[in-house]
Amino acid sequence: MANTEKKGPLEGLKVLDLTRVLAGPFATMWLAAMGADVIKVENPNDGDVTRQYGPFINDRSSYFPTVNHNKKGITLNMKAEEGRELFRKLAADADVVVENFRPGVMENLGLGYEDLRKINPGIIYASISGYGTYGPYRNRPGYDVTAQGMSGIMFLTGQMDGPPTRVGSSIGDTIAGIDIVVAILAAIYCRNRTGKGQKVETSLVDSLISLSTQDYIRFFAAGEVPCRMGNIYKSWAPYGTYRASDGYYNLGCGTEEHFRKFARGIGQRWMPDDERFSSHALRVAYRDELDAYINEWAQDKTVAQICDLMLQAGVPCAPVNSIVEISKDEHIAGAREMFPVLDQPGMVPYRVTNIPVRFSESGLAPVLPAPEFGGDNDDIYGALGKTAEELKVLREKGVI
Amino acid sequence: MANTEKKGPLEGLKVLDLTRVLAGPFATMWLAAMGADVIKVENPNDGDVTRQYGPFINDRSSYFPTVNHNKKGITLNMKAEEGRELFRKLAADADVVVENFRPGVMENLGLGYEDLRKINPGIIYASISGYGTYGPYRNRPGYDVTAQGMSGIMFLTGQMDGPPTRVGSSIGDTIAGIDIVVAILAAIYCRNRTGKGQKVETSLVDSLISLSTQDYIRFFAAGEVPCRMGNIYKSWAPYGTYRASDGYYNLGCGTEEHFRKFARGIGQRWMPDDERFSSHALRVAYRDELDAYINEWAQDKTVAQICDLMLQAGVPCAPVNSIVEISKDEHIAGAREMFPVLDQPGMVPYRVTNIPVRFSESGLAPVLPAPEFGGDNDDIYGALGKTAEELKVLREKGVI
Repeated sequence: MANTEKKGPLEGLKVLDLTRVLAGPFATMWLAAMGADVIKVENPNDGDVTRQYGPFINDRSSYFPTVNHNKKGITLNMKAEEGRELFRKLAADADVVVENFRPGVMENLGLGYEDLRKINPGIIYASISGYGTYGPYRNRPGYDVTAQGMSGIMFLTGQMDGPPTRVGSSIGDTIAGIDIVVAILAAIYCRNRTGKGQKVETSLVDSLISLSTQDYIRFFAAGEVPCRMGNIYKSWAPYGTYRASDGYYNLGCGTEEHFRKFARGIGQRWMPDDERFSSHALRVAYRDELDAYINEWAQDKTVAQICDLMLQAGVPCAPVNSIVEISKDEHIAGAREMFPVLDQPGMVPYRVTNIPVRFSESGLAPVLPAPEFGGDNDDIYGALGKTAEELKVLREKGVI
Repeated sequence: MANTEKKGPLEGLKVLDLTRVLAGPFATMWLAAMGADVIKVENPNDGDVTRQYGPFINDRSSYFPTVNHNKKGITLNMKAEEGRELFRKLAADADVVVENFRPGVMENLGLGYEDLRKINPGIIYASISGYGTYGPYRNRPGYDVTAQGMSGIMFLTGQMDGPPTRVGSSIGDTIAGIDIVVAILAAIYCRNRTGKGQKVETSLVDSLISLSTQDYIRFFAAGEVPCRMGNIYKSWAPYGTYRASDGYYNLGCGTEEHFRKFARGIGQRWMPDDERFSSHALRVAYRDELDAYINEWAQDKTVAQICDLMLQAGVPCAPVNSIVEISKDEHIAGAREMFPVLDQPGMVPYRVTNIPVRFSESGLAPVLPAPEFGGDNDDIYGALGKTAEELKVLREKGVI
């Protein structure tokens, strides 16, 4: 039975995780969900601040386990020389170190990439920060919201007559987390060929910019300054968000064939033959008239009815879901298993979001709890040869 | 000199790229920028539709090269048996096949993962689609906008009194592209251990959902239904977007220390000692009064002045940039090299967005042109042993 149990594609990859809050822990959660052996290292004096973030279940943070499940946890004070010595021993045996301190923190401790490569030439040293480890803004403090503003995505998001709008989730953090996973795995591929590790990095700002590549190109290739378009799409119609009797839905006609199917679907077969609606450019120009037909057709129908009718007609269409609908959706919550249960000791089992990638042969690791604060100290330091007595002394000294 | 030239960490990785439009080409552009050898395969009858998308430079699409640079290009009709035979030969020698057809298309051609693994047991077969290759919605057509609505991110984005709002860039496509790169590289890691390839996949919807993990948790752990909060943050203040005399800026006080620095920075040192402003929870409750002080201080200052003052005070602060500012920013465009020049034959050299990850030892591949339509047919089919005469016949038959 143990033979057939799937453990994820990264089984065997050893990761030392110094990250806190969201971007870094999200990255190492991906690695852990894909089967890597992740040891989260926290300062014994405070630890990851998100252990204090709500929502709470039985007075315990649900925020922390959501992005730290499937990891082991130790405490370690890297400001103490004995702590640094322990860290060097752990790094000597690791494939990857990940950190999201402000640039320079690890170097000042004598634990930067140049220090660690002397101990372990194959190590991949991965860094996530607001602005990156080099460049004039490298020391600026940053949060998701400042990265969103800096990157242009806020300027591009919002209603046409409204202010720049924050993307409603902290995607600056989560995308930088995914990007550093790409960099780590690419560096591991490279190491298999060269035998050598390297330092890899991304920043919240750069990660967000790269997502908007086709908006930037309108500026670089045509001198246009893209701005907020609300929920419409500049060059296609109908394409965007419409109102039903009980909520909103999205409709996307990206081709002439979609538009013919759409016209049939709303009972207006003549539309593609009407001069005003005979091309994307003309439909964009006559968008208001087009939308009036759509809204008249939709006004007495629910989102579910409209989506059924449009999908039957062969037109891309989907509801604007709240989390309530998504959490019980037969496809997303059911078949795609996007919300597995986390059974964290001391809490009531609750659902978390899964990573979105699937592996036919290796599967993903089963969802296991997040570490207690220092919960794996005895095991992990024990494996380095520390006796129970020595660990007691280290604990008393505040090293672990 | 050739020895010291950096080529990217994925040098040697062979990728067959069947993708079209945005999500798939963005994924293989990442692989190519990291040095993989990517061959883009297009149908000789039409090719990637984005070759017809603007903006245009010298009547040539700038859209296509932006996400297809650094690839080679061949034409191949996989509906013809001779075409499929050529494809099998290419797949026998590839590490990775990537496609973003609707689920089932490759299986119907006899070129699905189960077919290809018989030819090449180590192959990684990667698939991106709107809803994934399994589950009840697998055959639904999808675009970025339908994925954004389906995933909850639109419901979460927007002003509090406004409608659900599309994220202003096609992040459903671009994030799914990055996620499939993670899956491909994780499967390659796994293959190094097991010798076996596998099928990997993601969907636009699942990729977007995973980004909102900390919003979902509020529902799963606390039963709250997260909704649109505009540009504020529910549990912290001041945190969000404010107006200056010439535009908008973001300010983020995530800790009490930030708030003390902020109060000093706007010349109101008494603030942290005022009952109303003495904790995050109280500042959220008295947000309007707090904001009045900020806005009064800010009204006669520019975004640049405010950011300078706040950063000097040690408070996370940044402008809400448009693409114009970003394109000439000394950090982003300068030090971080986020906008390298693409010199595409037949066009005027123009800037594209870079990938956001950096590698200290292997660097990235230099930015090379996107392929002409079928531009590498002679080389690549020649390497399979096809003579000029045979290629001419294949061309006449519409196979290539």
